[in-house]
This record gives sequence, C-alpha cells and structure tokens, in this order.
Amino acid sequence: MFKTIEWQNNNVIMIDQRLLPNEEVYRTYKDFLDVAEAIREMVVRGAPAIGVAAAMGVALGALKINAKDRKGFVKEFEKICKIMAGTRPTAVNLFWAIERMKRVVKKNHKLSVDELKQTLIQEAQNIHEQDIEINKEMGRHGSKLIKNKATILTHCNAGALATAGYGTALGVIRAAVEQGKKIKVFADETRPFLQGSRLTAWELMKNGIDTTLITDNMAGYMMKKGLIDVVIVGADRIAANGDTANKIGTYSVAVLAKEHKIPFYVAAPISTIDLNIKHGDKIPIEERNIREVTHIKDIPIAPKNIKVKNPAFDVTPNRLITAIITERGIARKSFEKSLKRMVKADKIF
Amino acid sequence: MFKTIEWQNNNVIMIDQRLLPNEEVYRTYKDFLDVAEAIREMVVRGAPAIGVAAAMGVALGALKINAKDRKGFVKEFEKICKIMAGTRPTAVNLFWAIERMKRVVKKNHKLSVDELKQTLIQEAQNIHEQDIEINKEMGRHGSKLIKNKATILTHCNAGALATAGYGTALGVIRAAVEQGKKIKVFADETRPFLQGSRLTAWELMKNGIDTTLITDNMAGYMMKKGLIDVVIVGADRIAANGDTANKIGTYSVAVLAKEHKIPFYVAAPISTIDLNIKHGDKIPIEERNIREVTHIKDIPIAPKNIKVKNPAFDVTPNRLITAIITERGIARKSFEKSLKRMVKADKIF
Repeated sequence: MFKTIEWQNNNVIMIDQRLLPNEEVYRTYKDFLDVAEAIREMVVRGAPAIGVAAAMGVALGALKINAKDRKGFVKEFEKICKIMAGTRPTAVNLFWAIERMKRVVKKNHKLSVDELKQTLIQEAQNIHEQDIEINKEMGRHGSKLIKNKATILTHCNAGALATAGYGTALGVIRAAVEQGKKIKVFADETRPFLQGSRLTAWELMKNGIDTTLITDNMAGYMMKKGLIDVVIVGADRIAANGDTANKIGTYSVAVLAKEHKIPFYVAAPISTIDLNIKHGDKIPIEERNIREVTHIKDIPIAPKNIKVKNPAFDVTPNRLITAIITERGIARKSFEKSLKRMVKADKIF
Repeated sequence: MFKTIEWQNNNVIMIDQRLLPNEEVYRTYKDFLDVAEAIREMVVRGAPAIGVAAAMGVALGALKINAKDRKGFVKEFEKICKIMAGTRPTAVNLFWAIERMKRVVKKNHKLSVDELKQTLIQEAQNIHEQDIEINKEMGRHGSKLIKNKATILTHCNAGALATAGYGTALGVIRAAVEQGKKIKVFADETRPFLQGSRLTAWELMKNGIDTTLITDNMAGYMMKKGLIDVVIVGADRIAANGDTANKIGTYSVAVLAKEHKIPFYVAAPISTIDLNIKHGDKIPIEERNIREVTHIKDIPIAPKNIKVKNPAFDVTPNRLITAIITERGIARKSFEKSLKRMVKADKIF
C-alpha cells in the first residue's frame, strides 16, 4: 500500500497528495517550516492527518532548537507551535495535536532539553499510532450501521490519506468490507481540489473496493434513482451540538440525503469534537486561493479576472445528521448530551 | 459581442464552445455531417442552439442533395434528418427543429427541388431569428419576477451561447439588467463540461454583469448564508406535467432551493415543452463519454480504469419548480393545464 505520513530518522516523510493519482511521490521534510508549508499547500490534508503532521512538525522544530536551558527552549518551542497553528483554521485536530505537544512540555518540568526533545518525538509518534487504532475502532463501531450489499456515497477523502492510515469514513467502509459485506461506493469528485477523484477513488481501487466516480452535482440524481443507501463523510470540526464542518459540498449532500430519506453519518475521532464551540456557525471557515477553482494544474477553465468564491468547508447542521461515529461508539441525538458524554468519558490528556 | 451560430454564404458558422473562454474560434461548416458531429461533440450546445444548428445542418444537407425530382430529393432529405436526429437524445428542440424542416417539404408540394432548397434555408434562418425574438419575449415576462438588487443563482449555460442569442435563463437576467435593476449572479461551474465557468461567466462578463463563479457543491453553502434570492435555469425538455430535464446538477439545486425556500424558475421556449411526454421519468437521459469526468483537456484527474457515471442531464420534478417562463408568459401550477394552454395557444406549425 502507501504511507500517508511517517517519522523516519528524525525526518517527516509524506506522500505528496497534490500529485496523486498521477504520481506517487514521497517527500522528506527536515525543517518544521516546510512541514507548515506542506499543510498549507495541502501536500497533506484531512483533519486527522493534519493533526499528525502538525505534531511531527512541532517535534521536528523542537529537535532543532538551539537552546541549552528549559527557558530558552520553551520560548522557541512556543514560536514553533504558533507558526504551526497558523497553517489552516478549520480542522480542529491541528490545534488538538499542537495542544498535546504543548502538554508534554508543560508536564515534564524535570526533563533536560535533550530528554524533552525525545519525549516530543515520542508523543508525535504516539499520536500517529493512536490515530490508526482510533480509525479501526471507528470502523468496528460504524460498520454495524452498514448492511450487506449497501451502496455508500462519500464526499471528499476521509480515508487512509486523510489520517495516519485506514481512514474515518473510508475506515468504516473498509471494516464493513473486511467483515465480508458486499459494498459499493460512489465517490463525489469533490471540486475544487478533487479529493474524491484523485484520492478516494485511488485508495479504494488499491483495496479492490467497488468504486464509481461521479461529479458532485450527480449525487442528487443517483439518490433519486435509488442507488444510494447510506452517506458517510468525515469531519474537520464538530461543534458541541453536533453541527459538523466538513469539506465544501457536504452540506448539500446532507440536504439531498434528507430529501431522499437516506441516513447521513459522520465518522470522526473524538479529537475532531470541539466542545468549546456551541454551534456550527462559530466554526471558522477557510477561504482558499481562487486559483483552485479557476485552474486545473496550469490550465485555465474560467475567464480571466472572474470573481470567485472558494470556501473550503461548509457546516452541516445537526438536524441533518443521523449519527456521529467515533472510536468510543455511535453518538445519536441529542448530540449535545451524547458527544459531551463521549468526550468526557476518558480524558486523552 | 459574439455570434453563437450563423448562416453565411451557404455555410454554417459556429463559435467553438469547447475552446471558450481561452480561445474564441469560429468554425465554418460546409457539410451537414460535420454539423452533426459538432452537435455531438458539443461545439454547439444548449437546447435552443442545438435546434438552430440542426435546422441549419438539415438545410446544408438539403442544399447539396443531387436529385432532380422531388421523390429523389425527399429520400435523401429524410436520411439527412435521421442522421441529424441521432446526434443527441435529450434536448427536444433538436427534434422540434427537424420537424419544422420536414414540414416545409411536406407542405410545399409544388416547389421545384431548387425552390425547396431555398425555402429550407429560409426556414432555418427563420428558426434562428425567431429564437432571438422568443428569448427577448421570455426576458420581458421573466424579468417581472426579478426584484431590484436580486442575487440570482444559475446552473450550466442558458445564455446567448445556448441559443441563437440573448439566452433563456440569462435572457431573463439580461432583461432585468436592461431595465436598470441591480443584479448579481452566482454561476455554478457545472461539471463535468464546465458550461458555467467557461461559458456563463464569459458571456456575462462581456455584458458587464456582476458575476461570481462557484463550484457546484458551493450552491448550498451560498443559499444557507442567505446570498441567493432566486434560482433561474434553462431546460432541455419539459414534460407535459412540468417535470424538467436540464443539465446534470439542476435537480440538486432545486432540492436546495426548496430547503431554503428560494423560488426556482425554469426559462425555456415553447419548443422545449414536449406534451407527448407525460412525466419526466420518460425523458431519455444521455450518458456521455466518461473522459469528460476523468480528464480536463488531456490531464487525467482520476485513476486509470476507475468506474465512472456521466449522465448529462437530470429531471427536476414539477413540485420543485415555482414557475416556468416561456415567450408566451409565465406558467404556474398546475403545469399540466398552464403548459397545455400555452402550447396550444398558437400552433407554430
């Protein structure tokens, strides 16, 4: 298969997701600033994978800090965390992972600078390994919702490429397939960045999972024809009330699912739930470069100087979500209660 | 400005819509088979424009028939009509225009072959000229539905490029703008063929109309933000009950409009109404080459050998349509009655 992200010999290795599916290129990062840039430029994307990359980036930065005492180290370390936190605004896993790295420093007063560096590297690797385990747990829970012979629509890429491996929404699909269920997947291509056609189609094909690619605007047609039994998507941030920020277009899919009485599931780790945000309308929505809309590679597909909007995410209100699948089980309405219970069940910190 | 299609010196001239907005290339057609291929390959597209192109193609074919008597001429003429009718299945204007051409031959028993040829050329030019007039009438009626400072979402291209000029949905917008109303337009890019980004954005910019390009999956987000007051789209075929086939994705936009209580208007000439088809589910839906989805120009954007669906149209059920704007006024529910009355009001044949 492939590795989305790895810590190797004190470097961070990532598959360059911008080049998939045409080229499978692994890049080696030695400087945390380059990791920050890779997150910003979407070499790596997907909320859980962004979290892992941020943690590894922070570890990489920490490793190169030239300070002999704790005070000097902490000062530099905080700068690194700040830069890393400034890369992308919506996926809360980014801030969650940086927070975990910060806690390592806060908690370990007695370690030397060298020991702190090693502990930070270890923590980044823990986040990586735990993410795979978390995905598999999510798959175990979520696959119960998937019947044999189900046809599943997914939007964007919430797969192995969006995580440390296995995937959230696609992890649920993988688990169902591993249980011997016959599953068909429809993948929205997911404009403008084409995570569906470039990434989801690619990784599901590698697994031999029956996948059909459609453009985003075909989802309603497929539902109306009775071809979709279930929708499963990932999430970039889930508010305390269950409102879910995910890739632009998710909200439209959720409205269509409601119109056709199709269950709409969100699969995301606990680290994606942000209890500090009550409602979805408080989730910051990133606006990205309009060139993502006006060009494919270097080919212009729109007139010069046309006005363009490029919000990278939208918010699906809780009323349109049937259930939220996490590694701790399946949260149902009211989400205020079920999500709070799940998050508080076992403090990760 | 530009001309979508013209009859000039016994040739058909068309702007090659596949190359817009990057290149403005006019092609000259001397052979009806090349016009048929141009319709198939979407050099020209949009239901009314396809009708005009088919009529001109038939005229071009008729002109070159090498028969001295009526019988020989009619035999060849029917072959030409059959080939032209086989180009695309969904837009009924194609069949309507060919039928008009056939009626010229049927009605004029006494004309010589040469006179028939001239009458057919005249009929094709009439269809062309009438289409522009029809669009302007549609604009006059439809613009009454558009308030000053309205923001209008449109899907695909139902503009000057989709007709002999002026446009159906965009004709309504043009008329509102000509009346001095301040209008803002959001244009869905309309995957896979990108008629929105390549054509609608291009022609509205040429008119100085305030236009913002979005990807198809952003429409729901814009509606939820309260940025869309009205949706107007064109149509490829309208069944007797008002069910409307239009570019893939129209149905999703209609469901979203209903969810947000936004009026959803269809603008189309009477020639798009097919009283022979009772319900939308009887309208044939063209499936096009999957390369439209997997490639942009020659760049692959999906893995090799991925399964793909590429329905070019979908059907919006009448319940989601607020009103249908034609050159004879605004049809409201029940559409069975209002459309029938409009179609029968004045036989075109």
